[in-house]
Amino acid sequence: MINKLIERIKKLQAPIVVGLDPMLDYIPEQILNEAYTNYGENLKGAAQAIWQYNKGIIDAIYDLIPAVKPQIAMYEQFGLEGLEVFKRTIDYCKQKGLIVIGDIKRGDIGSTSTAYATGHLGKIKIGSSSFTAFDEDFATVNPYLGFDGIKPFVDVCREEKKGLFILVKTSNPSSGEFQDQLVDGKPLYELVGRKVAEWGELHMGETYSYIGAVVGATYPEVGKALRRIMPKTFILVPGYGAQGGKAEDLAAYFNNDGLGAIVNSSRGIIAAYKLKAYEKFGPEAYSDAARQAVIDMREDLRQAWER
Amino acid sequence: MINKLIERIKKLQAPIVVGLDPMLDYIPEQILNEAYTNYGENLKGAAQAIWQYNKGIIDAIYDLIPAVKPQIAMYEQFGLEGLEVFKRTIDYCKQKGLIVIGDIKRGDIGSTSTAYATGHLGKIKIGSSSFTAFDEDFATVNPYLGFDGIKPFVDVCREEKKGLFILVKTSNPSSGEFQDQLVDGKPLYELVGRKVAEWGELHMGETYSYIGAVVGATYPEVGKALRRIMPKTFILVPGYGAQGGKAEDLAAYFNNDGLGAIVNSSRGIIAAYKLKAYEKFGPEAYSDAARQAVIDMREDLRQAWER
Repeated sequence: MINKLIERIKKLQAPIVVGLDPMLDYIPEQILNEAYTNYGENLKGAAQAIWQYNKGIIDAIYDLIPAVKPQIAMYEQFGLEGLEVFKRTIDYCKQKGLIVIGDIKRGDIGSTSTAYATGHLGKIKIGSSSFTAFDEDFATVNPYLGFDGIKPFVDVCREEKKGLFILVKTSNPSSGEFQDQLVDGKPLYELVGRKVAEWGELHMGETYSYIGAVVGATYPEVGKALRRIMPKTFILVPGYGAQGGKAEDLAAYFNNDGLGAIVNSSRGIIAAYKLKAYEKFGPEAYSDAARQAVIDMREDLRQAWER
Repeated sequence: MINKLIERIKKLQAPIVVGLDPMLDYIPEQILNEAYTNYGENLKGAAQAIWQYNKGIIDAIYDLIPAVKPQIAMYEQFGLEGLEVFKRTIDYCKQKGLIVIGDIKRGDIGSTSTAYATGHLGKIKIGSSSFTAFDEDFATVNPYLGFDGIKPFVDVCREEKKGLFILVKTSNPSSGEFQDQLVDGKPLYELVGRKVAEWGELHMGETYSYIGAVVGATYPEVGKALRRIMPKTFILVPGYGAQGGKAEDLAAYFNNDGLGAIVNSSRGIIAAYKLKAYEKFGPEAYSDAARQAVIDMREDLRQAWER
């Protein structure tokens, strides 16, 4: 799957993943009203509005990008109705040829991580048959519990030829509170990065490992250091755009082969019509605005990428 | 909710939480066969078997214990069918008067943590009404992203009078890989513990904070140190029993008021009938075995508790 991701990035010249993190206040009135009329102004109506909104965006951008990253929390907050739409979104994206990175940030002790890995990346055996539950291609994982919380994910990934992105340095303002603490004179995120590189050896693709890392765009100096520490690790870079990360800072996250990173944008794409630069599209053409925002992001990144 | 938890612990003389972490191979044949016959040998059949199994256990033990802790991963691995049973289990436990600690170990950047907090502890506004999704009483949370990943959970807890247990030192063998790293000469878990105590001031109950901590039973010396660092923090202690934590080591997790900790057992209770000590019950009486195991655990802890 990491090989496929790289191939698609090269073909589309777009190291871009679009975060499908819908919020109700992103959704144009007409979609909300229709869903509420058909299903009620309740959890089901809200979830169905999200589905229609997602479908519009996916249809408008699927040919431009290699991957999407649905953030499960945005669906989980609507309970079972929301999670049904999370699953439907995954299935639809895969039908459209997109690689799906489940942004789930799970992580627990061994037997529990096995259950998460099974549910999101693997197959569960029931009687004599096997079934898939959510079936993403990649998942994000939290490393706080150490390797025996990670290993079950790696094992399932090896079996299924799937991959992970492990949190190393996150994009949020307080990420440094623990991640930047010095351990033997070096920040904790460097230790985590070294471990991710080491774990990555367990499941190598052709040029990069199936076991990637998350490093926020908002800390470019950190990106530079981690790029060196983890040369064969693919980096998922959140924080571009709405969170403040700029394209000129992103060059440091790529290797000399022009690869090694994939940059996420969520709100800046899916709610582009709400931004000044795209307001001419209006809410009815929210998906056209999203398409234009992807094209502009690709151009913006190309400059950083080809530097 | 922390006041209610303490009141129930005192009344029942049982600082015990039972982990509802069902695995298919814990479930007696007769329950599995009936579910597969009625619903098919598939995700739905498996999930319904888990529901019947859970219900049997809850009915057998609800009057002995203050709280249960369903581990969401064990349901999530069966996809939507599993999560429907997670929700049904929560609702049923609350009907029976049990406090429900959702063992979800979520944690993300601010806006995403808000969504998780909303879905698991709060209410979501849709149009002019509010709805609950999973609606646990407490949730476990991962601190790796720092305070702005935790604050949305605290905010929702303040609004709903609910609580958290934040991972400080986990019970698994490799928990030390990052958690034990020395920061200014002290282990990282102590820094996290100090922060949890500080965050706890934001949402105090009568004697303890609504913001608790997770500290594994498998590291009693650590429990002792963290008990001192976080005097008003309630500690959820996993790792007793099957994972190797012993009652005599648990005294250190309690304060002189005999309170301040609640000890979790999962497999040792819910699959007690598979243990040598309870095999006389047999699979048909698995719930009677669970009840006896709770009574024995209460006695075992009382010795540690009253020391």
